[in-house]
Amino acid sequence: MALKATVHVMLKDGVLDPQGEAVRHALGTLGFEGVQAVRQGKVIELDLAATDKVAAEAEVRAMCDKLLANTVIEKFTVTIA
Amino acid sequence: MALKATVHVMLKDGVLDPQGEAVRHALGTLGFEGVQAVRQGKVIELDLAATDKVAAEAEVRAMCDKLLANTVIEKFTVTIA
Repeated sequence: MALKATVHVMLKDGVLDPQGEAVRHALGTLGFEGVQAVRQGKVIELDLAATDKVAAEAEVRAMCDKLLANTVIEKFTVTIA
Repeated sequence: MALKATVHVMLKDGVLDPQGEAVRHALGTLGFEGVQAVRQGKVIELDLAATDKVAAEAEVRAMCDKLLANTVIEKFTVTIA
């Protein structure tokens, strides 16, 4: 059976997230109190032809390093299902 | 203890995802074979002052309907932790 990979890419903790801050401010404007912080990132779902979970995870991590994430300022997590 | 909400926003299944398609094409160019489909979406992490999980989930769903997702073309999931 083919595998499905889910990649989460978020800015690293120390990196300013103006997009998240804009969302937090907009939520406040709409009357949603009590939102203390917002961070926004990307989720990428990949349908893979591979059938070996371990090899697939290694390949998806390589994709993240090369294309999907900017590892200078972003962190990523890979889930294979 | 304060709660953390994670929102996933993805395009609905029938909606064309040119961003995901661009990623799929770029991965092929980089030599990653066997990537059959890519869908890209957003992940939004919210730190909430609320302490009631049920009320918090209802409030975050309202945030999605009003601001975070375009429910005409996007679907969303909410996880409270």
